[in-house]
Formats: sequence, C-alpha cells, structure tokens
Amino acid sequence: MKLFKKASRKAGLPPGTLIHIGEKRVEKVKISMISYDESQFDEKDDVPIEECLAFKEKAAVSWINVTGIHDIEVIEKFGRAFRLHPLLMEDVVHTDQRPKVEDFDDYLFIVLKMLTYDEAKSELQSEQVSLVLGPNFVISFQEHEGDVFNPVRVRIRNGKGRSRKMGCDYLAYALIDAVVDHYFLVLEKYGEKIEMLQEEVLSQPTPQTLQMIHETKRDMIFLRKSVWPLREAISVLERGESTFITDTVAIYLRDVHDHAIQVIDSIETFRDMISGTLDVYLSSVSNKMNEVMKVLTIMATIFIPLTFIAGIYGMNFKYMPELEWHWAYPVVWVVIILLAVLMLIGFKRKKWL
Amino acid sequence: MKLFKKASRKAGLPPGTLIHIGEKRVEKVKISMISYDESQFDEKDDVPIEECLAFKEKAAVSWINVTGIHDIEVIEKFGRAFRLHPLLMEDVVHTDQRPKVEDFDDYLFIVLKMLTYDEAKSELQSEQVSLVLGPNFVISFQEHEGDVFNPVRVRIRNGKGRSRKMGCDYLAYALIDAVVDHYFLVLEKYGEKIEMLQEEVLSQPTPQTLQMIHETKRDMIFLRKSVWPLREAISVLERGESTFITDTVAIYLRDVHDHAIQVIDSIETFRDMISGTLDVYLSSVSNKMNEVMKVLTIMATIFIPLTFIAGIYGMNFKYMPELEWHWAYPVVWVVIILLAVLMLIGFKRKKWL
Amino acid sequence: MKLFKKASRKAGLPPGTLIHIGEKRVEKVKISMISYDESQFDEKDDVPIEECLAFKEKAAVSWINVTGIHDIEVIEKFGRAFRLHPLLMEDVVHTDQRPKVEDFDDYLFIVLKMLTYDEAKSELQSEQVSLVLGPNFVISFQEHEGDVFNPVRVRIRNGKGRSRKMGCDYLAYALIDAVVDHYFLVLEKYGEKIEMLQEEVLSQPTPQTLQMIHETKRDMIFLRKSVWPLREAISVLERGESTFITDTVAIYLRDVHDHAIQVIDSIETFRDMISGTLDVYLSSVSNKMNEVMKVLTIMATIFIPLTFIAGIYGMNFKYMPELEWHWAYPVVWVVIILLAVLMLIGFKRKKWL
Amino acid sequence: MKLFKKASRKAGLPPGTLIHIGEKRVEKVKISMISYDESQFDEKDDVPIEECLAFKEKAAVSWINVTGIHDIEVIEKFGRAFRLHPLLMEDVVHTDQRPKVEDFDDYLFIVLKMLTYDEAKSELQSEQVSLVLGPNFVISFQEHEGDVFNPVRVRIRNGKGRSRKMGCDYLAYALIDAVVDHYFLVLEKYGEKIEMLQEEVLSQPTPQTLQMIHETKRDMIFLRKSVWPLREAISVLERGESTFITDTVAIYLRDVHDHAIQVIDSIETFRDMISGTLDVYLSSVSNKMNEVMKVLTIMATIFIPLTFIAGIYGMNFKYMPELEWHWAYPVVWVVIILLAVLMLIGFKRKKWL
Amino acid sequence: MKLFKKASRKAGLPPGTLIHIGEKRVEKVKISMISYDESQFDEKDDVPIEECLAFKEKAAVSWINVTGIHDIEVIEKFGRAFRLHPLLMEDVVHTDQRPKVEDFDDYLFIVLKMLTYDEAKSELQSEQVSLVLGPNFVISFQEHEGDVFNPVRVRIRNGKGRSRKMGCDYLAYALIDAVVDHYFLVLEKYGEKIEMLQEEVLSQPTPQTLQMIHETKRDMIFLRKSVWPLREAISVLERGESTFITDTVAIYLRDVHDHAIQVIDSIETFRDMISGTLDVYLSSVSNKMNEVMKVLTIMATIFIPLTFIAGIYGMNFKYMPELEWHWAYPVVWVVIILLAVLMLIGFKRKKWL
Repeated sequence: MKLFKKASRKAGLPPGTLIHIGEKRVEKVKISMISYDESQFDEKDDVPIEECLAFKEKAAVSWINVTGIHDIEVIEKFGRAFRLHPLLMEDVVHTDQRPKVEDFDDYLFIVLKMLTYDEAKSELQSEQVSLVLGPNFVISFQEHEGDVFNPVRVRIRNGKGRSRKMGCDYLAYALIDAVVDHYFLVLEKYGEKIEMLQEEVLSQPTPQTLQMIHETKRDMIFLRKSVWPLREAISVLERGESTFITDTVAIYLRDVHDHAIQVIDSIETFRDMISGTLDVYLSSVSNKMNEVMKVLTIMATIFIPLTFIAGIYGMNFKYMPELEWHWAYPVVWVVIILLAVLMLIGFKRKKWL
Repeated sequence: MKLFKKASRKAGLPPGTLIHIGEKRVEKVKISMISYDESQFDEKDDVPIEECLAFKEKAAVSWINVTGIHDIEVIEKFGRAFRLHPLLMEDVVHTDQRPKVEDFDDYLFIVLKMLTYDEAKSELQSEQVSLVLGPNFVISFQEHEGDVFNPVRVRIRNGKGRSRKMGCDYLAYALIDAVVDHYFLVLEKYGEKIEMLQEEVLSQPTPQTLQMIHETKRDMIFLRKSVWPLREAISVLERGESTFITDTVAIYLRDVHDHAIQVIDSIETFRDMISGTLDVYLSSVSNKMNEVMKVLTIMATIFIPLTFIAGIYGMNFKYMPELEWHWAYPVVWVVIILLAVLMLIGFKRKKWL
Repeated sequence: MKLFKKASRKAGLPPGTLIHIGEKRVEKVKISMISYDESQFDEKDDVPIEECLAFKEKAAVSWINVTGIHDIEVIEKFGRAFRLHPLLMEDVVHTDQRPKVEDFDDYLFIVLKMLTYDEAKSELQSEQVSLVLGPNFVISFQEHEGDVFNPVRVRIRNGKGRSRKMGCDYLAYALIDAVVDHYFLVLEKYGEKIEMLQEEVLSQPTPQTLQMIHETKRDMIFLRKSVWPLREAISVLERGESTFITDTVAIYLRDVHDHAIQVIDSIETFRDMISGTLDVYLSSVSNKMNEVMKVLTIMATIFIPLTFIAGIYGMNFKYMPELEWHWAYPVVWVVIILLAVLMLIGFKRKKWL
Repeated sequence: MKLFKKASRKAGLPPGTLIHIGEKRVEKVKISMISYDESQFDEKDDVPIEECLAFKEKAAVSWINVTGIHDIEVIEKFGRAFRLHPLLMEDVVHTDQRPKVEDFDDYLFIVLKMLTYDEAKSELQSEQVSLVLGPNFVISFQEHEGDVFNPVRVRIRNGKGRSRKMGCDYLAYALIDAVVDHYFLVLEKYGEKIEMLQEEVLSQPTPQTLQMIHETKRDMIFLRKSVWPLREAISVLERGESTFITDTVAIYLRDVHDHAIQVIDSIETFRDMISGTLDVYLSSVSNKMNEVMKVLTIMATIFIPLTFIAGIYGMNFKYMPELEWHWAYPVVWVVIILLAVLMLIGFKRKKWL
Repeated sequence: MKLFKKASRKAGLPPGTLIHIGEKRVEKVKISMISYDESQFDEKDDVPIEECLAFKEKAAVSWINVTGIHDIEVIEKFGRAFRLHPLLMEDVVHTDQRPKVEDFDDYLFIVLKMLTYDEAKSELQSEQVSLVLGPNFVISFQEHEGDVFNPVRVRIRNGKGRSRKMGCDYLAYALIDAVVDHYFLVLEKYGEKIEMLQEEVLSQPTPQTLQMIHETKRDMIFLRKSVWPLREAISVLERGESTFITDTVAIYLRDVHDHAIQVIDSIETFRDMISGTLDVYLSSVSNKMNEVMKVLTIMATIFIPLTFIAGIYGMNFKYMPELEWHWAYPVVWVVIILLAVLMLIGFKRKKWL
C-alpha cells in the first residue's frame, strides 16, 4: 500500500487530459451491462460502447459497469459517448481522488474507496470506485474485478426484495452500501490485529511487536484518510439536495451515513487503542530496563566493596600486622558476609528486591 | 467488554436484513406490556404479538417492552406487526449502533447505550436499548432483563406524581432519564478507581498499577464513544423539532441533555486525571531509576580508585621501595580514607547524598 | 476538593425529586431579604417563607438570599411557595451542576460556581451559587455564608451609584460580577504559585516540586471545568435574547462576559506555563542523570584499565621477566599516569569535562 | 514581562470604578491634541481637558492623545468630560485587557496591545493602547510615550498622501496599522533568536540553550495571547458593521486584518519550530548519553574479563601448575589480547564503534 | 528557505508604500504580453508599460506577465498605469503574503505560492505569484522566470482545446491550476524522501537520519503554511460570488479546489508519517541503548563475583588453610564455572539472552 501515488506525469497538461495514475490491475477493459425494471431484466457482458448507448434507453434502470480503467483510449471514447465532463473522466482514471460527491447538473459523480485486507501480504489494499448517477442509468468504474458488487447483481437478477422495484438512486445506494459494508470486514481484521498486539505487548513484547504497532498505526492513518471525507460526501447525498435522490432512498442513505460514522468512530477508537498499546509497550520496555539496571546495581554495589577488602589484603607490604594474625582470614570472611547481608537488607528496605 | 463487535456476517446482505450482532443474553424473547392513562392502568407479561396490537389501542399510553433480541424470527414478526421500517429493525438487532435519534415520520427511533459496571469481573458492560416513540405508544427493546426501568414501572403502577398524567413523550423521557441517571453510578465507580490509583501511584506504584491505569484509560475511550453521540441525539429531541415531543416534556429533556453534558464533562475530566496519574507514575519510576543510578555511581566511584590503589601494592615487582617502608601500610589506609571522605564531600556538594 | 461528587442516591428516583448532593456547610437554612427601589430600602434577616411572598410585592426589587441548601424540606417548601419548577429546585440542591442559564418563561435560572482558595489547606474550594431572576425579584441560593455578596449589599444599603436606580437585572448582574471578580483572586494565588514553582524548578527541583506541579495541573483542570461553560452562559444573557435583561444591563453583562473570557485566557496560559514548568523539571532531572552517568563513566573508564595493569603485575607466574627489572615499577607508574592523562584529554575533547 | 497582573484590588468594588492595574510608566499624564482637515492643521501639547472639548469642534478630525493612565483622578475627569462610559474608562486604566472592539453606540472602543522587544533586558514588553473612535474625534490612551505613533503624526503634519484628506476612521486605521506593523519587528527578533537557537542546538547545546528555548516558548504563549483576539477584533471592524467605518477605509482594515493573520501564522510557525528545536535538543542530549553509555560499556566489557584472568593468576594457591610453566605469562598475554580483539570485533559488528 | 522574511524596513511607512521584501532573483523587470481571442493571437516580449495599455484593448483576453518585482519604480509606474490599488501593489512586492483572494470591485487580486524543490541544495524554494483578474485582462507577477506557466502559453499559442475559446477567468484558472499541479511534484519528492527515511530508520538509523527527519518535519510546516490558506482562497473563487468568474469556469475551479484539498491531505498524512518515523527512530535508539545496557549488565554481573573470588585467594594472610589444599585451585575453577553457568541460566530465564 502506497500512501501517495506518483502524479508527476500530469503536471503541465491541459485540464481534462486523461492520464491513468495507479497500477494496471486487469488486462482488458470490460464493459458489462444490466438493465431492468420491475417486469423485465437483461444482462450482457463485453458490450461495445455503441451498443451501450442504445441499450441504455430500453428500461427504467441501466447499470453499466466498467472494469479496468488503465486503457485511456477506451475510457476516453466511453466518456465522450456518454457525454461525461472531461474533468469527471480525468478523476475516474486518476486513482488518487478523495471520496467525494460532485453535482454536474445532468448527473451526480461519486468517488469511493473500496478497501480490502490482503491476508497473504497482510496489507491493506485500496481501489477507487467511481459512480455516475444519471436520470435512468448508473455507471460504475472499478480498477479490477471484485466480488463486492456481486450480491447486488444477484439480488437484481433474482428480483427479490426492493431492488427491482426502485430506481437508479436505489441502485447507486446499493452499490455505496456494498462498499461501506465491506469496510467492516477490514475493521474486523484490524480489531483482531490490535487485540493480538495488546496481548503480545503484555506477555512477550519484541521489537517486531513494536514494528507491527507502527504499521497498524500507519494503516489507520490511511483508513482515516479514505473514510473521513466519505462521511461528508454521503451526507451531501442524504440531505436530499440533489434531484437525483428521492426521499425514500434518502432514508437508506441516512443508514449508510450512519455506517460511515460508525466506521470513523471505530477507526478513532482503534487509533486510541494503538496509542495505548504503544504506551504499554514503551513502559514495559522501560520496566525491563529498570530491572536490568537494578540487577547491575545490586551486584556491583555488593561486590565492589568486598573486592576492595580482598584487594587490601592482597597488598604486598612487608609490615601488615593483620596478615600475621591467626584468625585474620576467618574474621575477614565474617566481615565480608556481614557487609553483604547489611547491603541486602538495605536493598530490601528500598524495595529493590 | 469488546470495543468492536464482529459484523462480517452482514456484508453482502440486502439492506434491512435482520442479523443479530451481539451476545445472546436471555433464553427467550419476552414481551410485556403496560397501558395506562390518568384513570386506568393495565399490565401484562408474555403477551403474544397479535394481542399487543389490539391492546395498544385501549389507552392513552401503551408501553411495550421487548426483552431479548437474539431471536430474529420473533423480532421480525414484531417489526412487521407494528409496521416498523426494516432499517430500524436492522439497527435494533445489530447491537453496535451509536446512540442516535432518527425521525421515521410515523415514529421516532432512539438508540441508547445502557452501561453497567460489573464489580465481579471489574469490567464495564454495555447493552443496547432501543426506543420507538409513536403517537400513543412507546416500544422498548432490551438485550437482557435489567432493573433499570423498574423504578419507572413502579411509578406508573402507583400512579403518583406526573407519570400517569402525561403522554408518551414523558414516558420516553422517563426511560432515557433512567438510562442516563445510571451513568452516574458507573462514573462513581471510575471516580473511586481513579482516586485509588492516584494514591497508589504516590505510595507504592507497581507494574500492576500501570496496567490498571491503562485499562481505565481504555474504558474511558469506550465510555466516551458511548456517551458523546448521546448528547447530540438528546439535543435533537430537546430542540422540539419533532411533533412527538410536547413543550412541557422538552423542558425535562433539556434536563437530561444537561445530565449528558455533565457525564461527558466528567469523562473528559477523568481522562485528564488518568493522564496526570500516568505522568506521576512515569516520573516516580524515573525518580527511582535515578536513585538506583546514584547508588551505583557513588559505590563505584568511591571504590574503583581505592581498589586501584590496593591493586598497585598487590603487584609483585622486585623493586617497589614503598613495600619495604615500615609505615607504608597505615599510610595507604590514611590515603584511602582521605580519598573516600573527599569523594563523599564532593557528592554532598552535588546534592547526590 | 473533589472532582466528582457522589450522585448515586439519585438513580431511579422520579425527576424533580430533591436530593441534596454535596457537603452540609451551615447548620440551619437562613433566608434574608432586601427590598428596595430608588426612594426606599428595607432589609430583614431570618424571614419565614410566607412573609417572603407578601414582602416581595412591596418594592420594585426584592432580593431573597437563601443560605444553606441541605435542608430539603425547607428548600422544597420554598420552591413550592415561589412556584419554581421542580427540575430547577433539583438543580439548586444538587451541587454538581455546570454553570448554565436556563429560561423558564416566568424567570431565568442561573447557576454559577463560587471559587475560593483555602490558604490553610492550600486547596481550591468550590461552592454552587444559583440565581433566579424574575420580573421583580432575584433569589440567590448559597451553600454557606460567604462575604462575596457583601459589597453588593453595602452598595444597595448606601444607595450610592447606580445600584438603587436600576432593576432586578442589574442586581443579578451585580451578583454575577461579584462572583466572577472573585475568580481573579483565585487566579492570582495560582499565578504566584506557578511563578514560585518556576523558580524552584530552576534552582532546586525536588520530587515535592513535581508533586506540586501535578497538583496545580489538576486544579487547572477543575478551574477550567468551572469557568468554561460560564462564558457561554453569560453570553446567552448578554445577547439579550431574554426579556428579563434590559439593553442598559446588557452592556454591563458584556463586561462580565469579557472578564470570563479573560479568566479562561489566564487559565489556558497557566496550563501552558505548568506544562512548560513540567518540561523544565523533567529536563533538569534528566540533565542531572546525565551528569551522574558521566561521572560514573569517567571514573570507571579511567580506573578499569589501570586496575587491569595492576592486576597483571599481581600475577604470581614464576617467569615474568618484567617483575625482575629494576625500573619496572616506576615505568608502570609512568604508563598509568600517561594513560590517565590521555583519557582525560579524550574526555575533554568529547566535552564530557 | 508578567503573564498575569494583580487585579485583586478590584474585587468587591462597584462596576465602573477606576483602578489602575499595571505599572506607572510616566510621571505626569500628558494630553496632546492634533486637529486637522484637508486645508488646516493645528497641534498642541499639554492641553487642559476643558480646552480639549472646545478645540474638538474646530476641525473635521481631532486626535487627542493621552499619555500615562496611572493618575486616576485626571483620567476620570477626562472620561466624564468626553462622556465616555464608566466601563470603558475602567478598561482603559486596567491594563490587562484582551484586544477587543466594543460598540458603545456613540463611539467605538478599541483595545490593542503594543509590543516591543527590550534588547537590553532581552525581554518582551507589552503596553496597552486604547482607542475611542467617535464621529469627529479619535482619542488614544498610551501607558508611556512611545515613538510608534510618530510616523502617523509626521504624515498628518506634512499633509502628504491620503492622511489629511480622509476622516476619523482612517486615522484610527493608521494608528492600528502602526501598532500591527510594529509586531513584525518583534517577530523578526524572535525569528533571529530561533534561528540562533537552532544552530546552537546542532553545534553545542548547553543547559542554557534549553533555558532559552523554554523562555522563547513562554514568550510565544504571551505573544499569541496578545495577537489572537486582535484578529477577531479587526475583523469586526473590517466587516463594516459599524457606522463609524466607511467602505474606503474598510479596504485598508482588510489589509491590517491580513497582517494580523500573518502575524498569527508566524507565531504558530515559531511555536512549531521551537517545539522542533526542543525535540532536536532532547535527542542530541539523549544521543550524547548513549555515547557515554557505549564508552562505559565497551571499556567495562573489555577489561572486566581481562581483570578476572589477571585476578585468577594472582591467587596464592600452593598448587597452581600454570604458575610454574615457563611460557605461561606470554600465553596469558596472548589470551588477553585475543579476547580484547574478539570483543572489539564483536562491538564493530554491532556497530557500537 | 527562510520561514520568515525581514519586514522591519516597512514599519512606520504610510500604507501603500511599495517596499520590496524578498530576494532579488532576476536582473531586469520584464513585461511580456499575450492577447488573443478565438480567431486571433498576438504575443510580444519586453513591452513598455504605455504600449501595454493600448494593446490591452485589442482583443478579448490580454495576459500581461511581469517577471521580476524588485524594481520598485517600474512596478509602481505599472501599478499607476493600470490603476491598481496601492495596497494591492504593496502586497505584490512584499513576498511574504499568505495565499488569498481579495475583491477590489474592478478586479480580483489573487496571491499564490509557487513551490519548487531544488534538488541541488535539497531545499524547498518558494516564490510569490500574484494575479490580477480584470474584465478583459489577467496580470501575473512572478519573482523570477519559471517554466511553470509555459504549458499554458503553448496551449494558447496552438489554440487547441478550450484555451482560446474561453475568457479571462479560464486563463486565471489555467494559471492557478498550473501552480497547484506543480505542488504534486514537490509532494512526490517528499513522498520519496519519507519512504527513504522510513527504510533507513529500520535498517541503519544514524544521527543524520534524525537530522533529516527534523528537516522534513520543518519543511512540512512550511508547505502547510503555504497551501492551507490556498484552499480557502480558491473556495472563495469557486463559490462564484465574484462577477468575474463564470459558471463554466466555476466547475474547473472546483477541480483545483479539490486538488488543493488533496495536497493538504497529503501534507497531513506526511506529517503523521514523519511523526511515526520519528517514533520508530526513537524506539530503535532506545532499543539499542537497552541492548548496550544488557551487555554491560551481563558482563559485569557475571565477572564481578568471579573476580571477587579470585581476589579472596589473592590475599596474603599467613593462615589461609585453603591455599595449602592440593585440589583447591581446580575446585575454585569449578566453583567459578558453576557460578557463571548458573547466572547465564538466570539471564536466559529473564530473557536477557
């Protein structure tokens, strides 16, 4: 996961120039289309752009899904065919956008971040999802094929529940909801990671634990950056200022808005908890340090004077009366042991033992 | 207490699908009902859902209390019978909601967090309480049987005071008030805990103290997360924007709002105090460390040169004139004692002793 | 000073139940009364509640002062006599309110915190003062007899200046002003304390200094909690939204508002300064530690190799040619002194000396 | 510089009582007067108050400058003569006001802080400047004679540029501008000081450096306290809500507003930089400490085992075969040197050398 | 890069006096001019000011670019010729402005900061760019010749795309866009630098790493100071409150606004990451310190008692029975080895090894 994508190729180009910023994640751009109303349902894969346009008029709701955005030519052609504003298309292919909602009079433009946690690399992955919500169509752009929109597709296919009875705005809502619901999965991973770290920090902290704490902290910065603006964006939708959103759907959007706030809340709580974990780590390390210092001090403090005494009677002076005394050696031992015991008592008093 | 509940089972499901997120806390869903006006009072336990509906029309105010929300089937049936919005029902059974107030035209939906401090486990417990306030009914959903609503029940039964004379909004207020009043009990526990920690930190700090400080800090994060949005939620009610709240009750809600602010204030103060306690702990640990270092330094600094002197005269050179001198040994002792005294004076001057 | 008062007795009681939360500070509830207009003045102590009511109608302005709020029966009777809202009376006797202004249509309710610094215990003391401002009366509730309202009383008695010419709102202003003016005295004490701490930290920091720094920090938390909401409360009054406040008095209230902001400003500055003082303390402690370590290192580093040399020639090998050399002993001394000097020079270079 | 001035003498006095809070900085209160319009100009020093009033009517614009505010009697008389509100006069002589703008219907009251950096004492000096802007006069109160208003005076005298053609509001603007422009001089001093500290911290940090860092930090707190409210105050003027400010002058005030924001920006940047400098200082100190510890550890670790070996062969056992061996002594040396070299290599590997 | 420029020369001068604050970066002030509409295009370098004015009327859009602002006389003449407000001209030559937009009725004044990263000096460079947007002209002031506006010039010359078809506001937008796009290049440099630092901190942290971390931190402070107010400034433009901005261009400005927010987001993320890197550095340093202490403690703790034993048997008492024992010496060795092994086991248990 990179926190910042190279965008230098863009500098100096006229506004509205399409430059793909991001990784190429699929081989070929794939356009699929679903169009339905309460009574009918039609689904097609790999639709040519021209056919899309004709197809679009057939039913109440058309959902055009574009997977892969690296092929600038195709994307540009698509944009022109659907009369999407060049600045909008520029944002679609530049995958470093913040989540946002923009009103282009004829359609709403919604940018989201799809987050997934790659267990294999134990890394956070981010993908940009752009939605265009028009009067009778929803266009969605994805960087690569994901299964996150699949449940929505299945529900429409089956025609159960609300999905077929309602309009484009409900479809857009369903897609946003699918993305936001997925955040909880990511949060769950981090929740587990943090709990694991909290236990590790108490039982056996290692420098690797610290490394992981710092990584999790950095991931939280990234998560926050991705989700925070989403809240505001959905709130714009929910407040029903746009003519594309009906009141019935606004209630549903309020629910997603609520979920976004919950996600942000959890991220903030996680941040606090990681800070706490870091504090615990640091004080446990400093506690160990203190223990080390105490052992050193106790050993040194006890033996340094004793060694001095031994040193004294190791001197080679000719006239050292003690050396001749018969009981001198045992007396020295007694003195040494007494001294050691006294010092041990002293340490006990100071609660160092 | 978990800061984050697993919600992964929900991802991909259509909006409005009821999935119980949380622990199962009672065996069977129990529906009880109280209906009253100024002159009459009727109370029933274990009412079947159908009877509820009929019963509801009988009096000015009906209070339906549902204990246990884990049985999705029953809850779903209940929701349909009362024509509650699927998104509302979803929130009722998903116990990881933030406190909030939502206006569904036909009724108000209020989510609260009931907090209790489990002395046995010395743990903070959280339960989700949802209220639906309609024109002539209040529905309350609890996760398990608690005695927090009992005083309200008793007051209605006795018909003393205002409780029977006023409408549904007053009942809803009374329930919210009961929950918020209970927060003060929890705060009191933490207040005592923090005072105890403050004393312990000054008298005899141990790593366990540190552990408890960090735990209390984490609990404060959780408390804050539960109460902070409540303030805003009650403020929405109090401002009287909803038609379900009369002006008379708005004054009472202002009082609860005030209590919520007081709770938040106390939590913030507690946070500040725990931070202070942590600081005191850390400086007391560092003070002890300094003391340890000083003892080591004083012992080492005094005895190292003395041992060196002893070492010198322990050398076996053939020609060491001092060794032959008669008074050499006592002179060495004098030198050693002088050196030691000088160093002690030096330490005294530097205020290390 | 307690940061949190026990309020657990209140949980479960109906709203508007009077429970005295706080310490009992006077023996008996005392009601005194002053009523005046420009031409007349009347003052009475220990007035029975009934007389109060009659008395109230006599003049343009009546000031009823209630000292002692622990006797719930008297207070309740008083409240009923004056038709004060039960929630208002509840707040009067529950001394853990935040400063606030509440509009009860027939009167304004104002809660303030009276702060005093108890020199004897060197402790901050807090007392709750509640004011009820009606069309022709002001009721003030105090926890114990204080002299802070005395200057106001004297000014009314003497009839000098504006005090007798103006209405109830001016009286309420004068009381608020007296309380806020008193804050400056408390701040002054803390200003002196902080300056004293700053000097102590530079000249001779002890663990007691640290203790006092932490205590002052905690007091600032408390002060802040008491004064911050006051600003907002007075601002509500000043903006002249209430019909009880005339424009002339609004200018005076702007002045008190200004004072409140000044007090908050000073508290924030004090907080910053204490943090600074704490930083200075910590770096001075760490400086001392470094000095200790340097002395240890210098002594050890110089004498350890020297002692090793002495140790070498203390060995008892049969064939150690150096031992037989005539000049060996002085040469060893020269080597030892050279080594010591070299190391001293090295330390000098590293600026450890 | 004191962060807090004693205001205790004020407590208990009726509002509007003039008490001089601050230092007495000039001997005698001096009132000077300039009155001008496009065609005429008149200037007088030491004008008696009565003459002021008459004089005031003579021309389009009258600027009355009062230097020295410690003589309460004179100031009070002045205030009464010009019918200034007692609360305004109270603020003029109480030099601990925050910068503010207050609208008294008949005139605007503006409080500013004049800041100067006293190079001799290397101390920040603060003086309160109050302006009263009426329909045809500007009154300015200064604590002592400063040359900061001189350029304005000279420009009016010379009659060049805009100064004589415009009204009272422009004069008030010019005075405010003179004060704010002077802030840049003070900031420059601190800019230099901080740069000097940054260099010192890298080259040769001493405890004095730390002391200066903390002092600069405290000065920044003071600067911030003085300038932050100014921004808001000027913004009130600039927004042109007052009838005393014409649109033409509002553009000029926008410029001063901009300068005030620049000053605040610089203060914030300085705060960040000082924090950075403090961090650098602390890590450089901790780096030195580590170096000291490494030297100690290396010396001790190398020589302790070597001294032990020497100690072994210094023992006086009768049967120690090694002592008799002919090559024992050189072998011991070889062992000792080998050990030392091995340990040095080990340290090299650990990058301690 | 200096965070604060000397502005002391300005103090005391009348408002609107032009004083160049900043470095002189080009030799001579150069005025170039481009004027175009959809059908025609005219470009001239080194145009005298008088010619500019005539020339200005020729086409729909005139872009006058002034490079070099140090020659006050020329700039002043230019300002008078184009009737630009003296305060505006003052800001143009005083290169320490914050980014801002000011409405002078007849034209808009826009101040921007052009940022470049000087690879040679590895230093951030800042240049002030001022734009004046009138009904049919755009004037741009640069401190030195840069190639950042070149792409805009080329696009106009070629007449491709939107650039020639649109008005002055689009030209102003294009220039702002060019500046903001350039920020991404600077951010990229810092992104790389921070990644490099993060790796270095994990692999081989040196005091130089710390130095670079602190420098990057300071640069972020500077970047933030330059870009933060830009957001607000562009938002003023975008909201279309000015008559100079058409609705079509407002959409483009929304895009730049979005870019500015992205830049700020990245700066904040970088700040968080640098703080993280600093934390990692500090804990890695403290880890090393602990390792050092452990080695010292282990060596000292093992050898100090052993040396003591050797010392004991180095004493010269006449009657020390052990010295005579035949197996004493090997027994001592056994004791010594046993002790060492026991202590090593102890350390192993404490996980110090």
